[in-house]
Amino acid sequence: MTNTKNFILKFALVAIVFTVFSCKKEDTAVADNSESAITQEHPKLILTAQGVKDIRAQLGNIPIFDKSLQAVKEEIDAEIELGIEVPIPKDYSGGYTHVRHKRNWFVLQKAGLLYQILDDEKYAKYVKDMLMEYEALYKTLPLHPKTRSYARGKLFWQCLNDSNWLVYVSQAYDCIYDYLTEEERNKLETNLFKPFANHISIDSPQFYQRVHNHSTWGNAAVGMIGLVMNDEELIDRALYGIKDLKLDTNEKDDDGGYLNKDGKAGFLANIEEPFSPDGYYNEGPYYQRYAMYPFLIFAEGLQNVKPELKIFEYKEGVLLKSINALLNLSDADGDFFPLNDGQKGMSYYNSALVTAVDISYHYGGQDAGLLSIAKEQDQVLLDDSGLAVALGIKNGSEEPFRKESINLSDGPEGKQGGVGILRNEGMELVFKYASQGSSHGHYDKLSYSLYENGEEILQDYGLARFVNIEQKGGGNYLKENKTWAKQTIAHNTVTQNETSHYNGKYEIGSQNHPDLHYFSTDNDNVQVISAKVNNTYIGTDMLRTMAVIKDEDFEKPYILDVMKVSSISANQYDFPFYYFGQVLETNFDYSTPQTLKPLGTKNGYQHLFVEGSAKANNDNSKFSWLNNNKFYTLTTVTSDKDELLFTRIGANDPDFNLRRDPSLLLRRKDSKNTTFVSVIEAHGSYSPVSESALNSNSNIKELKVILDTKDYTAIVITTISGKEKLFITSNANASLEATHNLKINDKDYQFKGSYYFK
Amino acid sequence: MTNTKNFILKFALVAIVFTVFSCKKEDTAVADNSESAITQEHPKLILTAQGVKDIRAQLGNIPIFDKSLQAVKEEIDAEIELGIEVPIPKDYSGGYTHVRHKRNWFVLQKAGLLYQILDDEKYAKYVKDMLMEYEALYKTLPLHPKTRSYARGKLFWQCLNDSNWLVYVSQAYDCIYDYLTEEERNKLETNLFKPFANHISIDSPQFYQRVHNHSTWGNAAVGMIGLVMNDEELIDRALYGIKDLKLDTNEKDDDGGYLNKDGKAGFLANIEEPFSPDGYYNEGPYYQRYAMYPFLIFAEGLQNVKPELKIFEYKEGVLLKSINALLNLSDADGDFFPLNDGQKGMSYYNSALVTAVDISYHYGGQDAGLLSIAKEQDQVLLDDSGLAVALGIKNGSEEPFRKESINLSDGPEGKQGGVGILRNEGMELVFKYASQGSSHGHYDKLSYSLYENGEEILQDYGLARFVNIEQKGGGNYLKENKTWAKQTIAHNTVTQNETSHYNGKYEIGSQNHPDLHYFSTDNDNVQVISAKVNNTYIGTDMLRTMAVIKDEDFEKPYILDVMKVSSISANQYDFPFYYFGQVLETNFDYSTPQTLKPLGTKNGYQHLFVEGSAKANNDNSKFSWLNNNKFYTLTTVTSDKDELLFTRIGANDPDFNLRRDPSLLLRRKDSKNTTFVSVIEAHGSYSPVSESALNSNSNIKELKVILDTKDYTAIVITTISGKEKLFITSNANASLEATHNLKINDKDYQFKGSYYFK
Repeated sequence: MTNTKNFILKFALVAIVFTVFSCKKEDTAVADNSESAITQEHPKLILTAQGVKDIRAQLGNIPIFDKSLQAVKEEIDAEIELGIEVPIPKDYSGGYTHVRHKRNWFVLQKAGLLYQILDDEKYAKYVKDMLMEYEALYKTLPLHPKTRSYARGKLFWQCLNDSNWLVYVSQAYDCIYDYLTEEERNKLETNLFKPFANHISIDSPQFYQRVHNHSTWGNAAVGMIGLVMNDEELIDRALYGIKDLKLDTNEKDDDGGYLNKDGKAGFLANIEEPFSPDGYYNEGPYYQRYAMYPFLIFAEGLQNVKPELKIFEYKEGVLLKSINALLNLSDADGDFFPLNDGQKGMSYYNSALVTAVDISYHYGGQDAGLLSIAKEQDQVLLDDSGLAVALGIKNGSEEPFRKESINLSDGPEGKQGGVGILRNEGMELVFKYASQGSSHGHYDKLSYSLYENGEEILQDYGLARFVNIEQKGGGNYLKENKTWAKQTIAHNTVTQNETSHYNGKYEIGSQNHPDLHYFSTDNDNVQVISAKVNNTYIGTDMLRTMAVIKDEDFEKPYILDVMKVSSISANQYDFPFYYFGQVLETNFDYSTPQTLKPLGTKNGYQHLFVEGSAKANNDNSKFSWLNNNKFYTLTTVTSDKDELLFTRIGANDPDFNLRRDPSLLLRRKDSKNTTFVSVIEAHGSYSPVSESALNSNSNIKELKVILDTKDYTAIVITTISGKEKLFITSNANASLEATHNLKINDKDYQFKGSYYFK
Repeated sequence: MTNTKNFILKFALVAIVFTVFSCKKEDTAVADNSESAITQEHPKLILTAQGVKDIRAQLGNIPIFDKSLQAVKEEIDAEIELGIEVPIPKDYSGGYTHVRHKRNWFVLQKAGLLYQILDDEKYAKYVKDMLMEYEALYKTLPLHPKTRSYARGKLFWQCLNDSNWLVYVSQAYDCIYDYLTEEERNKLETNLFKPFANHISIDSPQFYQRVHNHSTWGNAAVGMIGLVMNDEELIDRALYGIKDLKLDTNEKDDDGGYLNKDGKAGFLANIEEPFSPDGYYNEGPYYQRYAMYPFLIFAEGLQNVKPELKIFEYKEGVLLKSINALLNLSDADGDFFPLNDGQKGMSYYNSALVTAVDISYHYGGQDAGLLSIAKEQDQVLLDDSGLAVALGIKNGSEEPFRKESINLSDGPEGKQGGVGILRNEGMELVFKYASQGSSHGHYDKLSYSLYENGEEILQDYGLARFVNIEQKGGGNYLKENKTWAKQTIAHNTVTQNETSHYNGKYEIGSQNHPDLHYFSTDNDNVQVISAKVNNTYIGTDMLRTMAVIKDEDFEKPYILDVMKVSSISANQYDFPFYYFGQVLETNFDYSTPQTLKPLGTKNGYQHLFVEGSAKANNDNSKFSWLNNNKFYTLTTVTSDKDELLFTRIGANDPDFNLRRDPSLLLRRKDSKNTTFVSVIEAHGSYSPVSESALNSNSNIKELKVILDTKDYTAIVITTISGKEKLFITSNANASLEATHNLKINDKDYQFKGSYYFK
């Protein structure tokens, strides 16, 4: 960031802060006159007094809400039967006391809702009784006895979980606030809530005072209890961090991330930093899903208690945009693309997304497409936003949620690369040119993955972890996450000299990022994204242009991939294709070894067995495979110096932590400047029931680079029937307004914009 | 077979033949008086004159029939638009002339049906015109120019396809019989149908005169055209084979099967031999599905034209029983178990099963369960049986098709072993103790596979072939089918000294088979099957007893497996478990090699890489894995002499023809008598959406053999909570009536029947 920009940003922040403070003062002024109406009426945080009235009026008449309510009622009634348990803290995650306190926070929050909605004192009494037990316990508690965390909690081994607890329990307290006597409230606030909020903030600045998803939970926890207690000090601390506190900006946390590199803190900074203006969360969708809840639930509370803050309009509405971004970062089945450390299978059916979808619908303009997701989720929040969704569904307003091609910038100002998704018919190309993605980032600049109707065609490996499966390293990150999953060779991009991008160094990765060259989706049939990066290896520049092309001569849209590498030195470039399924056919002769050996010794190469190897002997190397009864063909431009390797993950994997997934790896040695040009076709199908194979062959006769300069790369695609298409991409000036004139093989071409296709 | 048995069988056959001939004569006598009523009324073969009336009366009112009819009409109308093509034969399968003539047979048959049902001459004319083109062509044809087949056809490269053609075209001819003039009929019969039938029978005895699925097609073709033409000579030839012809009984066909070992021939012999009295087809369900159509369609024709033959009651109704057997040889999704050479994914949604289900419903007592399968198939035959099904569905008569535990004997008399399926809740244990299964058989005596709700837990590999996928060896059997898929080590059973059962010799395998010891499913909670075999290796006997046990202390039914091996010599026994998915945990320490080497050099061992190895160091070796988000644990009794090997298929596989599937292999060296005792538990689940792992641990603390003698094996299963269950199986006398008294560790046990469980 330049100094000028920095100044502007600081100025902007000051302006915002000023505005906010102004509002607050105004608000307080108003509150003096109508205190009982605004600040004293409970519930007010998530459920509101008006919402309770509306819900009660509709009960029995809003099917998805009624169903969600019934499920919660059955769950909580069963819990009440079992009696209250508030054990003395002792265990790590998974242990009894951890699980019990975690269960309690959910139970308290739900019981509070039931009290309000069903107007049954049994629930209020239950919440009160348990809170009183917590009050009695908490004031006796030292730090949690387990010492592994960089910020120990009191109920839990880490402040993060203490914060989780308070985010939920604030809601419960709000719900029974008016049920309690003032004396009871004083007791709880003095002995439990205030010291609790202080512990996770003032007493734990290394946890609280930073930009990190952990801190977001801390901020939300402090802020939400502050809103309920009407405690401006806590609310300020939540929004802006601990006053007058500066931390060492070079310290690192357990995951290797900086503790507080920029000195920023508080909820607003936590919105500011990780979200791009398009709503992309810098760690990727898997962690965005996890981080979403405190952002949205605290925002909802702020919107209800302090509407003048206009939190949902903050940073041009980035919170609501982020929900839209998150929903778009999923495949046809709703599964999030596993960018960076993402576990496959996580989807928008996760309960955090119920919150996101309901809030987005209620506060974000009632997008009818969200109702269809809510319907599939088959539950709603038991609050005002859940009511709105339930009414929308009941009224039949839902429409399909349509995911279109989308480009999401990364970085606080949207200037640190991004993620682009090109969609056409069932094909989804996910092109990653994002920044490092904090401590959960992978070293895979300009990589991509490819999906067809929710199935992976060319995969991103995701993380090496079995979350919460204790048999696998306690469910934590496995060492193979670092030695394999984060490495460049684990991804569909270029690895130079068997070394990962940025030498696999977090510090370097964090200071650099690719940049968008162009993104063009005006023509549905030819959608193109192009991005470049100059510093993954010193002296080597990469420019990758990927197009999803729907051509009438092809059954399905195909992918054209042009990866242009320029270097000041001669290098070995490895270019893998992580396919799935069964090798069908190649047009090159390969040999298979009698024993399998690892491809290399480090940077991920130690995990790849070589199952086959070949010298390319055609101008185009072709490889067809079969997966899930569908056919795929790769056609890639090669020279007789190129090698082709069939690899399989699994070497040096002493605990069977890695999946045995295959790849075809194109290796180009001793090259300075080179361009990898490939087409990936999905075609045909096989039915094991009728045993018929349809369209099982590639439709491409030839793929030829007819021009490749600093300024342009031009490729001719010739079909089996002899039809030719020419694609030219502008490597230098990608302006949509630019006009290009060039001569190829004595023929003149002229076009306007970033690319030519005809 | 003993001589006495042979004599009885011959006598029985003579008796049947005599009865049949008697009937035929009677029939002819009757026919003389009412010829026009019975033999001259067309259609009569599959569609009947009465059926046509009934169908026309119901049209527009029988949804599934109307839909099937509409689909056929659209298909045939489009074909008629394209015009008739009857090219001169030239190609192998997949080539143009082959595909065209194959298409024509379907089109002719369907157009015939449309003529009858819609009463629109356009279809009759189309059939007539095409038949006349065939007439003009056929009389000029020499043998098909391609020479690869042991029995060349004229339209196709093999008589098998010529027979396919005639089976379908007979139906078309029947439909337009009355539309043609006598002169036209004479022309077709004299120049086309009669010589066609003669070529595939009299001119091709090596194809026609045997017991084989090819011959069944030949018999049906000759018989069906005989029925339409009312040609008793052809009908006799179809039912009983070519008169007075004896073939060399030692000759073999292309697949390695005997051409005609027993000298039997004709349709009735083809029913007699491959089907057991329970309806099990000796090659297994995959080939039964293929063979089914000619059996059933010719039987339907016989039933309609010669009801006095009572073909559906032949051999105690074995044809209809075989449909029931076939439907039961499928998993929860309707996929057939891939016993022997079976391609996975073939299911009862195959069109051959539409025929089977409709005919079974119509001629077999209107089982309402069949209607639910027909409904899922979403189409019916356009004939009397299809009408019956459509009316059944329309009337809402359908019930779920329930698959229960079932034991299906193998062999013409049900005395050559069999296949038993134990089902409880979602668990399906498929236990194979069948005979060799002709040339498609595998060397896997006493093997099993295990399914949960249609998913494979412990797999049978199936075949090594990609049927009709030309890129893979032309879609034919791959050499790995012989070197891997057929070998014993590819299956979940015992391999001795790295050699397959019967030394992998077809001749020996065909002369031997296991025998049922006992099958007990009276108690739903403890279902047991036990079988033995004495000659897979000279001097070695095996007795395997497998139980599916539902115990209230376990979440799901578990499998207890007791494989008792007795030998006169010391051997190495290998005992694999072909699981799927990810290794979670073992209670033994294993090491993983830096390079992967094949486990052996032949008999399938050359295809297994060793990925890990261990010495067993506990009385029980435990292994847990995760597949498709479900947990599984194997607990097996071991001694410190046992080895455990993690293997993966894929060595010596130069064309990537094999799947890279894993196994855990228990190896016991230098043992004479030994018993493999194991429990397989399916338990719990993992949700990648909520990231919660439920019941991820085994419920078994200890598995202990407390007695193992010639007469009894007794096993104690102790759960984690300390509860004990005792299972005793009787190894000698398995009579349900037997009473057993035995003493184990000074305690007396008494039980009646084959086993004890308490």
